Amino acid sequence: MNAQSPKPSRLRDTRVTLAHGGGGRAMRDLIEEVFTDVFLPPGSEDQARLMDESLQEPGARLAFTTDSFVVTPLEFPGGDIGKLAVCGTVNDLAVGGARPLWLSAAFVIEEGTEIALLKRLVASMAREAASAGVRIVTGDTKVVGKGGCDGVFITTSGVGVIPSGREIAAPQIREGDVAIVNGVLGDHGATILAARGDLALSTPLESDCQSLNALMEAVLAAAPNTRAARDATRGGLASALNELAEEAGVTVVLEESALPLRTEVKGMCEILGLDPLYLANEGTLVVFVPEAEAEAALAAMRALPSGHDAVIVGKAVPRGTVPVVMRTAFGGQRIVDMLVGEQLPRIC
Amino acid sequence: MNAQSPKPSRLRDTRVTLAHGGGGRAMRDLIEEVFTDVFLPPGSEDQARLMDESLQEPGARLAFTTDSFVVTPLEFPGGDIGKLAVCGTVNDLAVGGARPLWLSAAFVIEEGTEIALLKRLVASMAREAASAGVRIVTGDTKVVGKGGCDGVFITTSGVGVIPSGREIAAPQIREGDVAIVNGVLGDHGATILAARGDLALSTPLESDCQSLNALMEAVLAAAPNTRAARDATRGGLASALNELAEEAGVTVVLEESALPLRTEVKGMCEILGLDPLYLANEGTLVVFVPEAEAEAALAAMRALPSGHDAVIVGKAVPRGTVPVVMRTAFGGQRIVDMLVGEQLPRIC
Repeated sequence: MNAQSPKPSRLRDTRVTLAHGGGGRAMRDLIEEVFTDVFLPPGSEDQARLMDESLQEPGARLAFTTDSFVVTPLEFPGGDIGKLAVCGTVNDLAVGGARPLWLSAAFVIEEGTEIALLKRLVASMAREAASAGVRIVTGDTKVVGKGGCDGVFITTSGVGVIPSGREIAAPQIREGDVAIVNGVLGDHGATILAARGDLALSTPLESDCQSLNALMEAVLAAAPNTRAARDATRGGLASALNELAEEAGVTVVLEESALPLRTEVKGMCEILGLDPLYLANEGTLVVFVPEAEAEAALAAMRALPSGHDAVIVGKAVPRGTVPVVMRTAFGGQRIVDMLVGEQLPRIC
Repeated sequence: MNAQSPKPSRLRDTRVTLAHGGGGRAMRDLIEEVFTDVFLPPGSEDQARLMDESLQEPGARLAFTTDSFVVTPLEFPGGDIGKLAVCGTVNDLAVGGARPLWLSAAFVIEEGTEIALLKRLVASMAREAASAGVRIVTGDTKVVGKGGCDGVFITTSGVGVIPSGREIAAPQIREGDVAIVNGVLGDHGATILAARGDLALSTPLESDCQSLNALMEAVLAAAPNTRAARDATRGGLASALNELAEEAGVTVVLEESALPLRTEVKGMCEILGLDPLYLANEGTLVVFVPEAEAEAALAAMRALPSGHDAVIVGKAVPRGTVPVVMRTAFGGQRIVDMLVGEQLPRIC
């Protein structure tokens, strides 16, 4: 799992060279030592061959999703691009009601990247996959020349199973349903912003980067009529809610006073003129449940570390003129639009 | 499917900007107009929810594979990065005996990329997917700043089903089996080399980029004891055969005089000192079948355009000192090693 592995290294280089992407012996050595020794059982084919009995149950459906990760910096407080690439895809599956089973991981690596860094990222992916209960079963490595990409990009795809009878989707949201988030908003975005170092900001913040499949299963067990969920990643909670409300044909009313925010994130947003509703999260979701099941859902979430700060933030009402509005702390009301431009590039 | 679509464009830009990757309205407009209008049914969730009855048959297995594509130039004679990204993943599934069902497509796009180019690549992917009988069911888009990546990278992942009883894998290869390739070698590598324009070479060559799932099904129907197959991509036929021979514990003897090569490719290799055995292919595979089924496999391949030039190139014999040797046209014998360094970067 790391550079101190007892197995003697066959890699003569400390940095990735173009030969490591050439399809020959150098590539095979890199792949075996850095990737497959960590992820895969020995003798794996290029193609993973799998089955899970849950997938063959009557009414089960397969869920399939993909995301490319281009975050900079590659390592940041609370995570790195490897952990993020696992959490992001696990969460995309989980918020649709799927139980994540298998991930693929494809790397595009800039010539000159330190092999020790690659090994750290891969170890981090393996740790997060084990903790989320998913297996990384297949992968790919490409190397591009210096300047051909910025560091390392990772694309993960995920396959999961949606058990029979589960229909977790935006159109299920009904008027009167409540919106719950599992924790504080904006930690990931604020952490990346601070970690870039351009702002001479020093904060104790950490990314919220975490897998949410166990949390979703707990919610679904406690609130069997859970309607829909979405992870509030790029574009933040505001964009996730706009998408859900539009697809559901309702308006969501947010309560500003209920929004869970750390003092540090609030402060950073005030200084920089950012809106925490648009800051990216990587371990935060919003879930809509019927009002009658809200307390049960909250209790189930709060019983887990990933839902410790769970709180009701809003409610679905009949569709008004816009999809999302917020009742401000001063008793006013403002439109919460989708993010129009770009708040912070390469956040994930 | 193209820029002449009757739907009015909501994109105000002709080039991709960072806002198109920000998770907000600009991104949604880009994704809807460029990607989902072509690939996906309206109202698709971020997560695809799928089932195919073949996957629920007893003994069926799921095949899962991924590849990142970073080829340069993005468009070349015979294909483009979009077509390549579909063929490459379809073929990875097919050579393992899987019937490809669904693909994901994740794009990393450099700021400033022309939207018209993106639309051409996406249309090309849709055409190739339709022709191969697979569906592109989910995707992702990230935008990086100018210089953050070189043009467009596409990562496709594929899910397919291996019907019960099929075991197409290197360890199945037996001594006496014959190796068949479906067509001429090196066209893709030679085409990319010429298309880069650094060499002032003008050739009538086209990439062999094509989906091989129909060809594999034809081989499997005609030669039910087919042992193993591999597409001869990065590292060429030499690397594919080395991998197969090592995993099978045999030596493969190639017949130089049998290798199918175009005059143009032969000529280019002679001028540049390249070995066509190491040139990349994107629509060429090598398949091992029992000698008794070789004629049936050949006939089945030759009946299809993708197998028109199919020919026996070698044979598996008891393991000697090296995995692959070649009987030269002059009656000698030479070792065919794996590619050691890098012949041509960013070939796929």
